[in-house]
Amino acid sequence: MATRVVVLGGGFGGMYAARALKRKLGNTAEVELINAENYFVFQPLLPEVGAGSITPGHAVSPLRFLLKGVMVRKALIDSVDFDRRLITVFQGIQRMPVEVPYDHLVIALGQGTDLSRMPGLEEHSLKMKTLEDARRLREHVIQQLEHASVTPLPETRRGALTFTVIGGGFSGVETVGEMKELIDRSLPYYPEIDPSEVRVLLLEFAPRILNEMPEGLAAYATDHLTRHGIDLRLKTGVASATARQLVTSDGEVIDTRTVVATIGNAPLPVVKRMGLPSEHGRVSVDRTLRVKGRDNIWALGDCALIPLKENATDRFDFAPPTAQFAVREAKLIAQNVNAAIRGKPVKTFAYESRGSLASLGAKRGVADVFGKEITGVPAWLLWRSYYLALLPGMGTRIKVLLNWVLDGLGARSVVQIKAYSKPPLRYVYYRAGDIIYRAGDRSDGFFTVVSGSVEMERPDDETGKMTTRIIGPGGHFGERLILGATRRKTTVRAAEDTKVLVMNRQEFMMLAEGFSAFRDYFKPYMEKRGATWPPDEGTGPR
Amino acid sequence: MATRVVVLGGGFGGMYAARALKRKLGNTAEVELINAENYFVFQPLLPEVGAGSITPGHAVSPLRFLLKGVMVRKALIDSVDFDRRLITVFQGIQRMPVEVPYDHLVIALGQGTDLSRMPGLEEHSLKMKTLEDARRLREHVIQQLEHASVTPLPETRRGALTFTVIGGGFSGVETVGEMKELIDRSLPYYPEIDPSEVRVLLLEFAPRILNEMPEGLAAYATDHLTRHGIDLRLKTGVASATARQLVTSDGEVIDTRTVVATIGNAPLPVVKRMGLPSEHGRVSVDRTLRVKGRDNIWALGDCALIPLKENATDRFDFAPPTAQFAVREAKLIAQNVNAAIRGKPVKTFAYESRGSLASLGAKRGVADVFGKEITGVPAWLLWRSYYLALLPGMGTRIKVLLNWVLDGLGARSVVQIKAYSKPPLRYVYYRAGDIIYRAGDRSDGFFTVVSGSVEMERPDDETGKMTTRIIGPGGHFGERLILGATRRKTTVRAAEDTKVLVMNRQEFMMLAEGFSAFRDYFKPYMEKRGATWPPDEGTGPR
Repeated sequence: MATRVVVLGGGFGGMYAARALKRKLGNTAEVELINAENYFVFQPLLPEVGAGSITPGHAVSPLRFLLKGVMVRKALIDSVDFDRRLITVFQGIQRMPVEVPYDHLVIALGQGTDLSRMPGLEEHSLKMKTLEDARRLREHVIQQLEHASVTPLPETRRGALTFTVIGGGFSGVETVGEMKELIDRSLPYYPEIDPSEVRVLLLEFAPRILNEMPEGLAAYATDHLTRHGIDLRLKTGVASATARQLVTSDGEVIDTRTVVATIGNAPLPVVKRMGLPSEHGRVSVDRTLRVKGRDNIWALGDCALIPLKENATDRFDFAPPTAQFAVREAKLIAQNVNAAIRGKPVKTFAYESRGSLASLGAKRGVADVFGKEITGVPAWLLWRSYYLALLPGMGTRIKVLLNWVLDGLGARSVVQIKAYSKPPLRYVYYRAGDIIYRAGDRSDGFFTVVSGSVEMERPDDETGKMTTRIIGPGGHFGERLILGATRRKTTVRAAEDTKVLVMNRQEFMMLAEGFSAFRDYFKPYMEKRGATWPPDEGTGPR
Repeated sequence: MATRVVVLGGGFGGMYAARALKRKLGNTAEVELINAENYFVFQPLLPEVGAGSITPGHAVSPLRFLLKGVMVRKALIDSVDFDRRLITVFQGIQRMPVEVPYDHLVIALGQGTDLSRMPGLEEHSLKMKTLEDARRLREHVIQQLEHASVTPLPETRRGALTFTVIGGGFSGVETVGEMKELIDRSLPYYPEIDPSEVRVLLLEFAPRILNEMPEGLAAYATDHLTRHGIDLRLKTGVASATARQLVTSDGEVIDTRTVVATIGNAPLPVVKRMGLPSEHGRVSVDRTLRVKGRDNIWALGDCALIPLKENATDRFDFAPPTAQFAVREAKLIAQNVNAAIRGKPVKTFAYESRGSLASLGAKRGVADVFGKEITGVPAWLLWRSYYLALLPGMGTRIKVLLNWVLDGLGARSVVQIKAYSKPPLRYVYYRAGDIIYRAGDRSDGFFTVVSGSVEMERPDDETGKMTTRIIGPGGHFGERLILGATRRKTTVRAAEDTKVLVMNRQEFMMLAEGFSAFRDYFKPYMEKRGATWPPDEGTGPR
């Protein structure tokens, strides 16, 4: 059987590694790439997708177009058995595990995020890691404008028109700049909104933004963003978040319904489960990109800790997690895997950064090219040219270019293509005093208290006097919808900082109908009210 | 206060009505349009979106671009109080009901679908009504190719490579033609799939397709589709469907994982709830488009039954549900609402169809223009030109044209942008004998039997002999995942035709953690196995 080289992951590291491996190995080996998606995402364009200047489908290329001759498998990676040299994957709608054999394994799975240290942030923030994240951000921003333009409640309006980005690195800075541009260009279509009502914030825990770039460029970026109305908060972190508010490390409470978290890099669970030697959450490799102690396991890109010299210790002694480095690492890994197969000596990784680039929105950017600092429109043009040239595949290049031309010519569409509905079962955080629902509101879900407590208020049936009741952990409320109720009769507010589990109406009703133990549990409640099962059809959207 | 005219619905009828009303009424009245989406969908292009020749965002226009001066409210319509002249809506993420007053109300909400007569079809079919439906179809088709190219199971491969469209009207015929083209153009990137393995079927209950068109054109279309490898089944309906199979009215069982239902038009629940006079599921209006018995309520488009003459009885005595008619109806409604406000006489609707058009895929079409029959490439070009001219807004026209040019030049992208995940709580149908899961499969959900029964099979702990157990309605299985189990120990198959309620692993675990009564129910089960709560972290993707 032919030697099998399997690459895990289809980002910059994985895609370029598979490509280089196929070129190097030709028909002497089988090259297979396994990825959860069937496309390659051009990560640097995500902020532009998030701002709608590029259509989502145009910022990505099908892996099968880019990788002729490579077997592409769209599957979820479950685990790797290094002794038996088998990868277990789940593919398609099947639950059946499939085992994929390898002789050499290249790990290029990138990094995940972990925001769990800040209560509520994971549940109530948007991310900027995947194409789906970027698309969701754009839809979310438009939704806030739609909502602000019709809501009669001033605090809702304020929260809807406040947009917050967390993290002043490349991703945070580019996202906030592009987002501001999207909002500015959309506002003419929302005459009900005064531009002065819009607030856009960037929070960064360090004393400066763009920590990877020279001081002068960061200063230019700071100045540009501030002049464009972005409220920059340095030395400011996040303490907690709810669906409506963000609490900063200074204790300030910001009414905001949009929080984009670009912080919190952490190893992916699948990489952790492999149990390979690691440091700082990244797989330890030697300078040849071979995983320490393993002959036939290689790693590159963001998931690997790649020393650039012997006895590396300092942060700058390791390869930075950038596309520029990943592409170089991919080349070397292909050479080294080829050499290892043929029993020839392997080489060590050596590359020096050419510089770095950031776009700031409104046709401005900053660039550090071979130590030369460029700012403004030239830097922005350089940014676009560099990434256009780096895009793999002529088709994608043409599409992105056309997107830019169209965006430059006409108005940016405010179409909200998809309303991302909240997951039917979800954790929601409330701060003390937050209203969970009011009497008269639509009955749209069933709640259980996970931690904290809530206060229910309703008029007594006989006296009409307001009565209150406290519900603590393990307690539940809102179950009246099992009776077919469509409007709330009580007002519920968080008595302290509270975490609840919410189940949407539809799912609650399905469970009550389909799972008899669940229904039986609510029986006494229903009988007390003389109700029948199933309930009568109420009114209201389902 | 100014007279308020409110239009419900932003499709062809509603959008053009709001536009004409604003032009007619100027500043003498407020015109407001309420729609669930903030965009206008150009319905005739949906099959092309479904086939990927047009990007979803480019087939729609923001209502705010098209309706300058009209207040656009993105909201869900709950109910109308005709006495108080108030519409109750739910907008944004708020549960708070908002009341919108009107003096004249124009109902243009279109039609919904009802597939409930065919067991499993609602749950296991794709639709072609909304932009989201079209996008979902494209992603689903690509997913089937991805899956077929890697599955080791022949019956899965066969099901994945069989694509079925139900209904031989305009929507069904255009969808099947475009879908076949998408598949044909994608196959070169799936060298693992032999084109002869692909089956595309069109099922139509009537003895012919394109019932609204002249016989000769239908014959041409039939011939064209058949020559392009589409298996046309006339006089064939659907009896039932599962995720894997379709049973026809003849009792034939077709292995197919793609069923597109273009049949089953039915009134929308919100229109039904209004309780207006209706016939054949459509709101009864007189020839002036006024709802019978109501002075200030008007209706047009697919949701209205519009007589074209006095004493209309025959199907052809009423306006057909087409864009062509809706646009004309919109014009008249604006005139008549204006006349009603000013106390002037209203006019009756009169319009004769200019003809009809259908595209068939592979650059062919059929057209009936003023009674003249055109087929082939000229008809296809006419189709494209007509709809391009009909598109509202120059920006959208340019975008659609560019999409067509790009699609004509290069390969069609096989990017599967979004994997539509199955809803976390859902009904699933199985036919007798279907395997629900096998020992060794990933434990991904909890099941309760709604109707029918299942057979569980597992080796006895002591003797190792296979034992079986039957679980009927109200029973449940798969709950071992509460213990942290990641692989199935049993094999479960449907003992008869069975409907189950499935809850995904993640939601089941959240409910067990957050809702104590739910957890308590499973306590005896866990204790029997000496388990602790919460369970240990298992392996496997979450």
